[in-house]
Amino acid sequence: MSGHFEELLRRLGELQDVEKTGQVLGWDEETKMPPLGAEARAEQRATIARIAHELQTDPALGELLEELRPFEEEHAFESFEASVVRVSRSDYEKAVRVPSDLRADLSRLSSQGYRAWLQARERQDFNHLLPYLEKGLELRRQYVECFAPYDDPYDPLLDIYEPGMKTVEVEPIFDRLKEALVPMIRTFAEGGAVDDSSLHGHFPRDAQRRFSLHVLERWGMDRAAWRLDKTVHPFMTCFSPSDIRLTTNFHEDSLHGVLSCLHEFGHGVYERNVDPRFARTPLAEGVSSAFHESQSRLWENLVGRNLSTWRFFYPRLQDEFPDHFADVSIETFHRALNRVEPTMRRVDADEVTYSLHIILRFELERAMLSGDLDLRDLPNAFNEKMREYLGLQPQDVTSGALQDAHWSDLTFGYFPTYALGNVVSVQLWERIESEVGPLDEQFERGEFGVLREWLTDNVYRWGRTFTPQDLLDRAAGGQMDPEPYVRYLQRKLTDVVGAAVA
Amino acid sequence: MSGHFEELLRRLGELQDVEKTGQVLGWDEETKMPPLGAEARAEQRATIARIAHELQTDPALGELLEELRPFEEEHAFESFEASVVRVSRSDYEKAVRVPSDLRADLSRLSSQGYRAWLQARERQDFNHLLPYLEKGLELRRQYVECFAPYDDPYDPLLDIYEPGMKTVEVEPIFDRLKEALVPMIRTFAEGGAVDDSSLHGHFPRDAQRRFSLHVLERWGMDRAAWRLDKTVHPFMTCFSPSDIRLTTNFHEDSLHGVLSCLHEFGHGVYERNVDPRFARTPLAEGVSSAFHESQSRLWENLVGRNLSTWRFFYPRLQDEFPDHFADVSIETFHRALNRVEPTMRRVDADEVTYSLHIILRFELERAMLSGDLDLRDLPNAFNEKMREYLGLQPQDVTSGALQDAHWSDLTFGYFPTYALGNVVSVQLWERIESEVGPLDEQFERGEFGVLREWLTDNVYRWGRTFTPQDLLDRAAGGQMDPEPYVRYLQRKLTDVVGAAVA
Repeated sequence: MSGHFEELLRRLGELQDVEKTGQVLGWDEETKMPPLGAEARAEQRATIARIAHELQTDPALGELLEELRPFEEEHAFESFEASVVRVSRSDYEKAVRVPSDLRADLSRLSSQGYRAWLQARERQDFNHLLPYLEKGLELRRQYVECFAPYDDPYDPLLDIYEPGMKTVEVEPIFDRLKEALVPMIRTFAEGGAVDDSSLHGHFPRDAQRRFSLHVLERWGMDRAAWRLDKTVHPFMTCFSPSDIRLTTNFHEDSLHGVLSCLHEFGHGVYERNVDPRFARTPLAEGVSSAFHESQSRLWENLVGRNLSTWRFFYPRLQDEFPDHFADVSIETFHRALNRVEPTMRRVDADEVTYSLHIILRFELERAMLSGDLDLRDLPNAFNEKMREYLGLQPQDVTSGALQDAHWSDLTFGYFPTYALGNVVSVQLWERIESEVGPLDEQFERGEFGVLREWLTDNVYRWGRTFTPQDLLDRAAGGQMDPEPYVRYLQRKLTDVVGAAVA
Repeated sequence: MSGHFEELLRRLGELQDVEKTGQVLGWDEETKMPPLGAEARAEQRATIARIAHELQTDPALGELLEELRPFEEEHAFESFEASVVRVSRSDYEKAVRVPSDLRADLSRLSSQGYRAWLQARERQDFNHLLPYLEKGLELRRQYVECFAPYDDPYDPLLDIYEPGMKTVEVEPIFDRLKEALVPMIRTFAEGGAVDDSSLHGHFPRDAQRRFSLHVLERWGMDRAAWRLDKTVHPFMTCFSPSDIRLTTNFHEDSLHGVLSCLHEFGHGVYERNVDPRFARTPLAEGVSSAFHESQSRLWENLVGRNLSTWRFFYPRLQDEFPDHFADVSIETFHRALNRVEPTMRRVDADEVTYSLHIILRFELERAMLSGDLDLRDLPNAFNEKMREYLGLQPQDVTSGALQDAHWSDLTFGYFPTYALGNVVSVQLWERIESEVGPLDEQFERGEFGVLREWLTDNVYRWGRTFTPQDLLDRAAGGQMDPEPYVRYLQRKLTDVVGAAVA
């Protein structure tokens, strides 16, 4: 039987090698590849993805997993052995439900749709994207049918990113957020805008990079296992728990690129601290999109926009940009960093308004999927919700329904995990502070190890051992709950803005 | 039948994608990867290599190639169709001769031997490497037997790098070089050393990079398809004809890194100008190691150490390093760049002595393979030849038999192609000048297009369409001939050093 388990590890290792190799191709494409390399790279990525899919759906793998049922039962649920078998079987069963032809169609249309989206934006013409979106939605419906029966047609899409979570569980969380956030924004608007002029100006890229690395290394980035490279749209990828690649985009007129680094660090520190024994198995990664996002949000917002954190780092920031920050008090800088103001673009949104951008999209993609929303009406429906939730009127379709690539590339079901990540991040934070006490004094001394170690022990090291729901229950003592996040935002508004909010 | 050809192209495309992907993994490892990524990367590379090998030796590919014999015969020899089938069949037949187990053993021992070599160098202890070398040589002998019958046991090894060339053809070329070069070095030594102090000093890396890119772009590097990155041991790799990666290593105390760029450019410009139609087929690469090396040598030495070339670039070099070259005449600089002096290390060798380093290794590896040289005697045999050919006495085994990694990693048969590349480079050069006239005036004006276009038309674009022997015959009008190279060195010595040589 242990021979079977060895064989399983061999197959899983091979699959992981191929998948990680595909990620190397993607990282290189986004950070290093000369533009004319694109055509060959598309072929290379398609071939590697096809090989990975063949390995993932090989019937021999399915048989092996069946044969390993007694082996799995002999081992404790949390054990490496039982977890590898359990998680691999779940991955296998999910993968074989989708016919290869449908998978290939989805993959092809995803690329075509993305290119059409770029063109539609250039022409400011939603109709250019429309046929791709219609075809894409049809394929996504076929994908959903592979997982029948389901309670809600959105469930199989959500399940890609947030395994085990149901749409019916997301709804009350989002309703509560909407109820709390919309008036919060209104109160804020009445109080007048925070002055964030200190965040605008000229910030040389070299200094931004130096400063970012200074922060990240203090947080736990080690150069032996991490890199930071330039890209257009920042992301984190990793090729093993000891090969973490952060990317960012430093613009000379703002510090957005620095904040991106803090965000991507959260994704990286998660992958870096998975149990090394999980290497080359499907256990060796973050458990879900919401959990991953909870970590990027936690490090970007809860640590990275925290006054105590800046008590340590602000002098260094002033040193790097002396002309800029010498006469700006840390309080002014901190308020600017936490300014709340509705923005047209999701990617520019602050902590309060961000979740509303997401809820809007969640509602629209469910309506598209069910057929309640005719795709031709999407631009209007998008604008209406922008007015209702954020009080903003998109001036054109590129700042409206064409804002994100996510639907054109057939990504449906991913958006909610961004907002759920916010929710989880504060649930974890409250638990941490209740267990180890307030972290402020440590942050003021530039010490972030206690936080990182708590997260490693309770979240990171487990990889995919538990379901996201069980992991949250173990780590935060309950199911997903928006109240801590709402409380946190109310407190922050009071602290930072001095606005009285309900 | 054309359906079969489509199917062949599909299979070859997939194989190319996987092989190029393996090269992306290698490039990243050598230029970007954080050190702790090494373990996972070794697994990823091994898996990708195994998949490539499976695709390359798939019996279905062999059957397809058999079925395509009539198709091949219907098409002209030089046609894309016939060439793809012919070259693929030759690759397939060579690949299937070697059992997978032997290939895996070779691959494993290559890594182990390389690590043992690093350790042996650290300890200055040849005996530490000895068992690996013995085992490796035994595996190489098994490899050779896969290709029996052969005229010379060295033939199958040479054939890996220089397809179709026989050891018996290499011998007279090397004998002639030895006969000419050994006295040339002696004459030179009697004349006294050229002053090359202008090549030593402090050269900031940024300026070296800027200057190198200035030269390479003038030569034909376009940023849309090329990159230049930092590594330890410079190399060129490419992921498609429009994705060329040069690497170099700029040291602040010399201009070696600049010269490496010129060398690697020659490899890159070859791959860049292969017929774009060959993409994703085995035709899309340089035809052999000697031909590839002929191009790196041609651009590094015949163009890059040419006085006319420097008449154009030297003012820019002076601008980049004003403290250094302001008072150095171009003639002094040019003489320094062409200084001849035996060096202990092959990689530091000049144009004249380089080939002797190679001949020495060629003779030793043949003796090892045949058993005429007991491996325990290798260090002494190495030192004896160093004294005989170069007049130098290695002080320790790291500057003697442990100098190169090439034997420890089971690379036998590659060394000769370095010196054959020198030979081919001057054969081509003489032909070019006889066809288009002297290039000096163009170079002085910073024009390198006529040279590049001649090489593209006569060599680069053909990729692997012809055998190396036929390509040389077409391009240079004959077989490999050392006389042009010998004449070139004699002329250069007279010009540069003023030494009268026989």
